[in-house]
Amino acid sequence: MAEGLSSVLIANRGEIALRIIRACQELGIRSVLVYSEGDADSLPVKLADKAVCIGPAQVNLSYRNAEAIVGAALALKVDAIHPGYGFLSENADFAALCEREGVGFVGPSSEIIRRMGDKIEAKEIARRAGVPTVPGSLGAVAEFAEAVDVAREVGFPLLIKAAAGGGGRGMRVVASIDTLERDLSEIMSEAEVAFGDPSVYIERYLTDIRHIEVQVISDGDTVLHLGERDCTAQRRNQKLIEESPSPVLDEQLRAAVTGAAVALCREVGYTNAGTVEFVFDNITRAFYFIEMNTRIQVEHPVTEMVTGIDLIKAQLRIAGGEPLTLTQDDIVLTGHAIECRLNAEDPERGFAPNPGVITRFRAPGGFGVRIDTHVETGYAIPPFYDSMIGKLICWGSDRNEAIARTQRALRELQLDGVATTVAFHQEILGSEGFRSGQFNTAFVANLMAAREQPAPSTSSSVN
Amino acid sequence: MAEGLSSVLIANRGEIALRIIRACQELGIRSVLVYSEGDADSLPVKLADKAVCIGPAQVNLSYRNAEAIVGAALALKVDAIHPGYGFLSENADFAALCEREGVGFVGPSSEIIRRMGDKIEAKEIARRAGVPTVPGSLGAVAEFAEAVDVAREVGFPLLIKAAAGGGGRGMRVVASIDTLERDLSEIMSEAEVAFGDPSVYIERYLTDIRHIEVQVISDGDTVLHLGERDCTAQRRNQKLIEESPSPVLDEQLRAAVTGAAVALCREVGYTNAGTVEFVFDNITRAFYFIEMNTRIQVEHPVTEMVTGIDLIKAQLRIAGGEPLTLTQDDIVLTGHAIECRLNAEDPERGFAPNPGVITRFRAPGGFGVRIDTHVETGYAIPPFYDSMIGKLICWGSDRNEAIARTQRALRELQLDGVATTVAFHQEILGSEGFRSGQFNTAFVANLMAAREQPAPSTSSSVN
Repeated sequence: MAEGLSSVLIANRGEIALRIIRACQELGIRSVLVYSEGDADSLPVKLADKAVCIGPAQVNLSYRNAEAIVGAALALKVDAIHPGYGFLSENADFAALCEREGVGFVGPSSEIIRRMGDKIEAKEIARRAGVPTVPGSLGAVAEFAEAVDVAREVGFPLLIKAAAGGGGRGMRVVASIDTLERDLSEIMSEAEVAFGDPSVYIERYLTDIRHIEVQVISDGDTVLHLGERDCTAQRRNQKLIEESPSPVLDEQLRAAVTGAAVALCREVGYTNAGTVEFVFDNITRAFYFIEMNTRIQVEHPVTEMVTGIDLIKAQLRIAGGEPLTLTQDDIVLTGHAIECRLNAEDPERGFAPNPGVITRFRAPGGFGVRIDTHVETGYAIPPFYDSMIGKLICWGSDRNEAIARTQRALRELQLDGVATTVAFHQEILGSEGFRSGQFNTAFVANLMAAREQPAPSTSSSVN
Repeated sequence: MAEGLSSVLIANRGEIALRIIRACQELGIRSVLVYSEGDADSLPVKLADKAVCIGPAQVNLSYRNAEAIVGAALALKVDAIHPGYGFLSENADFAALCEREGVGFVGPSSEIIRRMGDKIEAKEIARRAGVPTVPGSLGAVAEFAEAVDVAREVGFPLLIKAAAGGGGRGMRVVASIDTLERDLSEIMSEAEVAFGDPSVYIERYLTDIRHIEVQVISDGDTVLHLGERDCTAQRRNQKLIEESPSPVLDEQLRAAVTGAAVALCREVGYTNAGTVEFVFDNITRAFYFIEMNTRIQVEHPVTEMVTGIDLIKAQLRIAGGEPLTLTQDDIVLTGHAIECRLNAEDPERGFAPNPGVITRFRAPGGFGVRIDTHVETGYAIPPFYDSMIGKLICWGSDRNEAIARTQRALRELQLDGVATTVAFHQEILGSEGFRSGQFNTAFVANLMAAREQPAPSTSSSVN
């Protein structure tokens, strides 16, 4: 590929499409957006250098339609496709199609996507790289007798996980040997139905954990890490609030976890931006590799805010064949950044998606406040897609300032017409647990459960 | 004063009022805004913790009405008044009134404001501190014979400046001895009428200069500088685009100019945030002190973006009696920031102010983009005040990235209903002169003059 891209097709929508358009425009790369009929009136369509309708609102006919997207890339003579996150971004077949058709893909090779997308192979690669993994089966567990052997080693409770699952889907906690046989057979059947692949593996079930991930970039020769993100504030395995740096890592642990991420990338020959995800056991303070995301992530801005490095530009430069000019010593984490995912969901009605028209939108502003959103006043949120309508990212010189600034910005944000998670974020940010920094992945559920408890009686019993 | 302010009255309007409200809210300080009838529907009024109408739209009856403002502060029992910039912010009598009434003033003492506000005394203080000043009269020049003596020393062209002038008002360039007597008497009469003070002084007229200023903060004991801002891109002595760091200073010059600013502050016992302004002679690479602004400045955000230090919070903390916990070594300039002042003015009609209703406002967003503005969709710009409607501040890892990001953000900004300077900023940012970093205070005027020239003829003469 020639050095430097001159045009890029963006195969995504919403805030990440806009994010990529912005990076292209700052680099002087022509941004070509493909969009569905459901997004015809969206801000990315207005702001892209060129926008082409690729199909109907349904994702299989538009944003997941690999042939149509590659066909558009060829017809429009772009140098490369940026897949964003979700949709086709971790689809090895799509990357392979790009390779066959001679269209650049902003991401690693299809082979790496395929290998890291297979959770069992990814774990094997991690072990070869000397990266700790959660104690468990070395590969797929095909039958009950094998599961019993693994269970003896890792103990109960244990976790059965579909190899092709992810994001909390295709998992089951098994409390004792009594239900192991039934649970194993059920989760294998479910995995076959849901993912077309019955492979499962078994792991120790960790009960007091944080989710910590490491951002990496590599040009194929130089692998650099950009510190960690802490994504422990989750609801039902969906990230709500992410921050960088993690409030619990000391320098020794940070060096260990980032070193592990770099070792993994070297082992697999990783190229472009990626995220190596770990669980961190609050009790033992051990971390374990869980998976690698071979794409840009929703929460990448917190890393940008503390490092000053534009990750989308880095992706585009690497895809254009430019070697990294940074060294690890150039990457310094300064201050603290927090991201809140703003969803059009109603927390008072079980977080039901709440599409509709945004009758009034006013972004918060001022020092340290970044808003990444595709919505504006009058925008009709289409019912076909993810409920995320934007991200608020605030930087502070320390974690307390970042929290105070986020609270101020959420207060200032005006977003009328649809129910959102803004007040829910305020509740989390104002809680003792979040402010202390000492919490685990059950924290948000516990906070919600506590809220639903009846208030303690103020009359005292004489008995 | 007790440590820490618990409530602050904001005696200002527009974006700076909102800026101070935001800082107060992040610090947990109650923000009380006084506003004029002309600003009743403005965003600061909506976002302040409390807002009180102080008088009619005319500034002398509202934002410059010292007695009414101090009376409101006493009635509302606030701890201190933040004056912002403009209006009463550098009015020593207002600061003295606050002192007499026992109301805190977020700024230095009335005595320091008075001393630094007198340009001749300020120059004397600078000389005592060993800070270079523009060659010229040591004090006020009262008569022609004295002017002739000074002129012999500094040479022609020279500049006659009203001691009480500023921002380009009350100055005249004198080309030769022939007009010196007439020019001197005219500018003294004008100064008497305009400022109530006929004092003038004489300086060498420098023809190829930049405007470079140093941000300082002091708690009375520790004086720190936060690097410099370069405000050379001006139109008629009004700053248009400011940046930090300056594209022309090397480390040696930076150390010299920041050291001079700190020495001046020590000499005068300065407290709170302030800006020491210098001219930088492109030819000799010498810098000379010109004046000190004893208040926060419009362009303070570029310093915040490269240092990470929130200057308004620093002001509030110092006013609350908190000592600085930073040391000079903690202050590191990272990357590059550029601010564009967005004015509701029509560049095609001599930059005439263009008040009216903003029918649609959409702020640009994304990484490195900060917008400080009080306007929103539907806002009617009142005709009574300054034409600045907001500031766009963009950070980049280097100057080129900051320029590209500013261009992208200006392109993304939607502001309909009134004429603005947005396209004018694009013209400056896209020019060779600005991009090279090598220009002087005449650069914008030259750019405009070049634009007004007829295009060169494409037919060649045979003669």
